[in-house]
Amino acid sequence: MRTFVEIIAAKRDGEALPSGEIASLIEGLGRGELADYQMAAWLMAVYFRGLDDAETVALTQAMLGSGRVLELAGVQGVKVDKHSTGGVGDKVSIALAPLVAACGVPVPMVSGRGLGHTGGTLDKLEAIPGFRTQLPASDFARIVGEAGCCMIGQTAEIAPADRRIYALRDVTATVECIPLIVASILSKKLAEGIDALVLDVKVGRGAFMKDLPRARALAEALVRVGTQAGKSVVGLLTDMESPLGTAVGNAVETREALDVLAGGGPADLVECTLQLGAEMLVLGGVAATGTDARAQLARAIASGAASATAEKMIRAQGGDPAVVADRSRLEVAGHEVVVEAPRDGFVTRADALAIGLAAVAMGAGRTRADQAVDHAVGILVEAKPGARVARGQPLARVLVRARDEAARAIAARVAGAFDVGEAPPPHRPLLLGRIAGSHGSHGRSTRKADAV
Amino acid sequence: MRTFVEIIAAKRDGEALPSGEIASLIEGLGRGELADYQMAAWLMAVYFRGLDDAETVALTQAMLGSGRVLELAGVQGVKVDKHSTGGVGDKVSIALAPLVAACGVPVPMVSGRGLGHTGGTLDKLEAIPGFRTQLPASDFARIVGEAGCCMIGQTAEIAPADRRIYALRDVTATVECIPLIVASILSKKLAEGIDALVLDVKVGRGAFMKDLPRARALAEALVRVGTQAGKSVVGLLTDMESPLGTAVGNAVETREALDVLAGGGPADLVECTLQLGAEMLVLGGVAATGTDARAQLARAIASGAASATAEKMIRAQGGDPAVVADRSRLEVAGHEVVVEAPRDGFVTRADALAIGLAAVAMGAGRTRADQAVDHAVGILVEAKPGARVARGQPLARVLVRARDEAARAIAARVAGAFDVGEAPPPHRPLLLGRIAGSHGSHGRSTRKADAV
Repeated sequence: MRTFVEIIAAKRDGEALPSGEIASLIEGLGRGELADYQMAAWLMAVYFRGLDDAETVALTQAMLGSGRVLELAGVQGVKVDKHSTGGVGDKVSIALAPLVAACGVPVPMVSGRGLGHTGGTLDKLEAIPGFRTQLPASDFARIVGEAGCCMIGQTAEIAPADRRIYALRDVTATVECIPLIVASILSKKLAEGIDALVLDVKVGRGAFMKDLPRARALAEALVRVGTQAGKSVVGLLTDMESPLGTAVGNAVETREALDVLAGGGPADLVECTLQLGAEMLVLGGVAATGTDARAQLARAIASGAASATAEKMIRAQGGDPAVVADRSRLEVAGHEVVVEAPRDGFVTRADALAIGLAAVAMGAGRTRADQAVDHAVGILVEAKPGARVARGQPLARVLVRARDEAARAIAARVAGAFDVGEAPPPHRPLLLGRIAGSHGSHGRSTRKADAV
Repeated sequence: MRTFVEIIAAKRDGEALPSGEIASLIEGLGRGELADYQMAAWLMAVYFRGLDDAETVALTQAMLGSGRVLELAGVQGVKVDKHSTGGVGDKVSIALAPLVAACGVPVPMVSGRGLGHTGGTLDKLEAIPGFRTQLPASDFARIVGEAGCCMIGQTAEIAPADRRIYALRDVTATVECIPLIVASILSKKLAEGIDALVLDVKVGRGAFMKDLPRARALAEALVRVGTQAGKSVVGLLTDMESPLGTAVGNAVETREALDVLAGGGPADLVECTLQLGAEMLVLGGVAATGTDARAQLARAIASGAASATAEKMIRAQGGDPAVVADRSRLEVAGHEVVVEAPRDGFVTRADALAIGLAAVAMGAGRTRADQAVDHAVGILVEAKPGARVARGQPLARVLVRARDEAARAIAARVAGAFDVGEAPPPHRPLLLGRIAGSHGSHGRSTRKADAV
């Protein structure tokens, strides 16, 4: 058995570590035998040398094993979750979980809070009066069984080693490392007690991965490692140059997600929700093909079953279920500053990063984990890239508590996120790629044509 | 001003850091604003990306500036020290400091303790009854002034940042990194208040650097960075395949070093001492050429001036000066186990690493910094590579407190360090290279022919 220093040196020198040694690092960290500074040095060595798939599986399993796996054996069916790598205006989960559950696939979902320019599902859900995201594990299992889905925050019991390592990575410049990202995501998702997972890897200005090759590398690694860890995994690559949908904020995003369940919502948000939902239905074994799955999803929306499932989940989690039918019950800031098109033309840029950062600046998000958010403020994007606009027509509405100097400063930032040009920009499709593992029911492929 | 995380990321990405940022890391560490785990991540990034000379100078100065510089302004003359990168049987300092001081060059020397297979000057000096290596800085300056030399251990005031960083490197697999080694050595040596420095970079089995290219790279970096830090610096590359001299241990090494001052001692030890001493006399401005310097050194030995200086220093540091004239006052273990040649032939290997480790195993050294050493035990190498031996003739004597099972096991280890073959091995010269900085009085050169 090698010492911790020898294991760090072996990774530093490019060696692939046996899974037992990776487990010993994580266990050593938990027991206080491996110091934070040794883990930090190992993480930086991993940044340079990488981890192969077997090492990444071992790291995932070791971090998973540092905590408990939520017990969902009592819940019937193939349990499927979705994870997004994060973007601006990405409220998909809030529509997707009840929609998929309404089609008979249980969705146990552990989500995060917003940090930096990307929002967090928990913050958006908490815009629903009374909604509780911190529940005991036993309530989580019961609600998944009864309502078909439940959406909570990470508990102290889930992958504590991941939480500790993530905090270290954040302050040691070792965040941008694909195998570490993969192990972090999968260790938390596997702790939900799921059978299958659909990944939404965002690509573009507002995403963690700015370019397609890096995003594809991340998606492929997630699918390979998740598959090797025994789960059915499919990854989609979707566009995040501009915000998804029109709403950016908390209450406004929840409102827009509930619009989708009611048969409305912006086209790109609906399409993203249906693409991911179809994958989940196929993985969950209730649909044989993507076409079949999309038909079931459409029926669940049209019949009101999806909204009814959302009401059931919200009620079970202490929230006001009436928001589903009456979205005006969600408190939205009562004043607006309109960002107008400076000229006639076509919108060529609605920068997701800039808009996300403006939303943070107005209090909808946070720059430090311990900050509170304002659920009522937000930004509505009225004209997305490709839209024809006349001078003076609204590009965006900034929803504020008062039309003061600060509000106008935010509006100026939002204005800077837009470009209006002579000609429409080249069309950028929502779905940029699809990757399925060998356990995935569509076979492994990265070709777009294989999308369901 | 970038944040610490941004600075770590910049080094991770291969950027050369401005000296102000390197200073801010070291100051941040001292003030508790930069955590050990952040420093560990930065050190691993440096392991992969390196530091250029300007960065290494900045790191050296920042670590030097974390503590105090010993005040030697009251001491007349150009103050010169020697530093060895460590080897087995390397007792040169104990002869060299008084010898050079006797020729009129003050030698303020801060030394270390043995760790791992290499011995430490402080442990060897403490074999002298009463000798104290922990002295207040004011005593150090006074003794350098009065005796011409003083040899003490590192104090808490000297380069505390280096001590903390070295401890981190030791447990994070970031020891073997030339710019970090250079900054660590030079920050401590510059804290002695010296004007010039001679470096003995050991090469071979028993050295930190096992091969000549790596050792040369280290020596060149030390000379370049030391020169840029404003000092006159010369580096010699010397052989460490076999132990230097014949004695390995503490009392036996001090005895052998004092033999040199009395005009005796093994040829390789004498030669190494004279080579380094000649460089010091030239840097110290008391000799114009290497030839002149060697003549002065020989006279200081023959006249007894070198031994008299040693007596003065030992007395000033609380030790028994009578050991210089009567080396039998040094307590050496009273029993021996002889390691005999297994056949007639020539010694082809006397492995410095194996012999050093055997010495540690018998208690002459330590594997952890908090262990005590036995000053009396040791190993005497009777036949070095090239020596003709008859079967049964002694290769080494293992000096023990009792001829027990443990002693025989050590002797077996020592036997394993020797090879005896048909033909003599190729001659390996002691001096393998010489590097002088532009401030060095011989001009920059790495050719052996330029050795003094």
